[in-house]
Amino acid sequence: MSNPPSEILAILAGAEKVLLATHIYPDGDALGSQLALGKVLESMGKEVFLYSEEPVSHLYDFLPGCDKLVTSLPASAGFSCAISVDCADPLRLGSGREQLLAHKPFIMIDHHLGHQPFGELQWVDPGRSATGEMIYDLAVALGAKITPEAAFCLYTALVSDTGSFMYPSTSAHTLEVASALVTLGVKPAEVAGRLFDNYTVNRLRLLRLVLDSLELFSRERIAVILATCEMFTRTGTVAADTENFINYPRSLASVKVAAFIKENRDNVISVSLRSKGKDCDVAKVAGEFGGGGHRNAAGFKLRSGDVETLKTELLARLEILIGAC
Amino acid sequence: MSNPPSEILAILAGAEKVLLATHIYPDGDALGSQLALGKVLESMGKEVFLYSEEPVSHLYDFLPGCDKLVTSLPASAGFSCAISVDCADPLRLGSGREQLLAHKPFIMIDHHLGHQPFGELQWVDPGRSATGEMIYDLAVALGAKITPEAAFCLYTALVSDTGSFMYPSTSAHTLEVASALVTLGVKPAEVAGRLFDNYTVNRLRLLRLVLDSLELFSRERIAVILATCEMFTRTGTVAADTENFINYPRSLASVKVAAFIKENRDNVISVSLRSKGKDCDVAKVAGEFGGGGHRNAAGFKLRSGDVETLKTELLARLEILIGAC
Repeated sequence: MSNPPSEILAILAGAEKVLLATHIYPDGDALGSQLALGKVLESMGKEVFLYSEEPVSHLYDFLPGCDKLVTSLPASAGFSCAISVDCADPLRLGSGREQLLAHKPFIMIDHHLGHQPFGELQWVDPGRSATGEMIYDLAVALGAKITPEAAFCLYTALVSDTGSFMYPSTSAHTLEVASALVTLGVKPAEVAGRLFDNYTVNRLRLLRLVLDSLELFSRERIAVILATCEMFTRTGTVAADTENFINYPRSLASVKVAAFIKENRDNVISVSLRSKGKDCDVAKVAGEFGGGGHRNAAGFKLRSGDVETLKTELLARLEILIGAC
Repeated sequence: MSNPPSEILAILAGAEKVLLATHIYPDGDALGSQLALGKVLESMGKEVFLYSEEPVSHLYDFLPGCDKLVTSLPASAGFSCAISVDCADPLRLGSGREQLLAHKPFIMIDHHLGHQPFGELQWVDPGRSATGEMIYDLAVALGAKITPEAAFCLYTALVSDTGSFMYPSTSAHTLEVASALVTLGVKPAEVAGRLFDNYTVNRLRLLRLVLDSLELFSRERIAVILATCEMFTRTGTVAADTENFINYPRSLASVKVAAFIKENRDNVISVSLRSKGKDCDVAKVAGEFGGGGHRNAAGFKLRSGDVETLKTELLARLEILIGAC
């Protein structure tokens, strides 16, 4: 586990106006880290500009301060520095990446493995469960005040990226930070409720249909579930409503690898992969289909093709993987 | 939050042979606490006798040392003391309760609200998330060694009774204890995997049928799900396989109260109730049907009757409750 680099601390301590960004399709860790860092810097008297390419998803609009995210980049410069949090690849900064990276020094803070280096200064620590854990340490190192709102955003980041402290990335330090955030006023049940008790009745109907699609292969070690356009239409749901569904096939005791194939309305097929254990690297498989991710959680997208052909190809590849697990 | 009482510490420090028990149908907190306390006392050179009325459920047989639980009580006395952990009511000590309580001093350690006092010495702290949290503090106060196996049992107790740190009972201290246990060697993902990734394919089929039974009432604020004998037969499952199913209707954003009605093979109907928030006390409703529990999690059993009549009566009662929430 690495500490916040002193160069980054020095730049932030001296900064007056900071531009903050994260990756596209931001999740709880991305948004929680970005908003919390904004609040931390504001508490130090700095001016902060929060950029997001797209409006915040309804899944995360409970985060305090997310109404301050702006979807267009300011034309003028004048930023002391720009920071991206939780973004492992410059492509994932979105369409504004060239404009963003033009703000120098560009600092990136991230916890992903297989990070593509970019910007002038980097703090990358794949030993961290969430970027939010790093932002907490950064705030402490800066001697900044962590307000209850910032604590709430950081706790959301932790819970979001550790599946409520259930993923292998959860360390003693992760739980120590979580404890400190609760001391600062966070109510764990409130965060969990916001993140997980957000089902609509239509979403539960979609879950039933998706569970009905479950198929098992290779002596029940590979599980595949499917969400079709027809299911989304029938239940009045969208692809975003399938969040966490991959955990159902994954939770089967016999299953080593789970795949979730989603047919999107624009003919794009997206695939999420999950695996258990150190020897079952689904990021490699995702990479072969043009995607990426972590060892136990990865994914890819195909711009065209049909689900059945893809399933056959994917299964052939997963069977080879399973053989090595 | 209260500390371990000095009288209890003194008795345990001086004890030579200790009888340990917990409640019937023990869950992860009950078994984890019992086994961990056994290991802690053994590390202090004491002899320990672990009693359980029934063999350990397959859901918890991964706990190290559970093979040392004995289902019959020793005839002879000679115990320095007896201890029950996580048991709120002497009736829940099971059929051996009189024999158990005859061992004096009888100490009980528990975190339930609405505890029925029994035994000579008590340490009850409803401010604790789990009895496991209390056993950790007890071990520290005794200056005892917490082995990796004891730490694993205690971590299982915490995760089990807090829904992986998502329930309102999760405090800064809970997370601090969890962090200390991870430092002692616990791997959070291993515990979560053992507790939650234990679905069989039949269990997932049962989940689909139970989700199909979902009904909503009172502007989607009351949700009811049902598991019938026919569903168990059709999927080759038993009532124990429905663990955690109540969380699905509970996770609906609109729902304030969720009820899960289970038809058991012996004609017994059991009902689980869950609610959200401080004002919605389902323990009161469960009490009116002869059951009990906590404010946000309670239940009851009926020895006879039919599901439809029960559902009508229960709904009438829940609608009154909802009106007050």
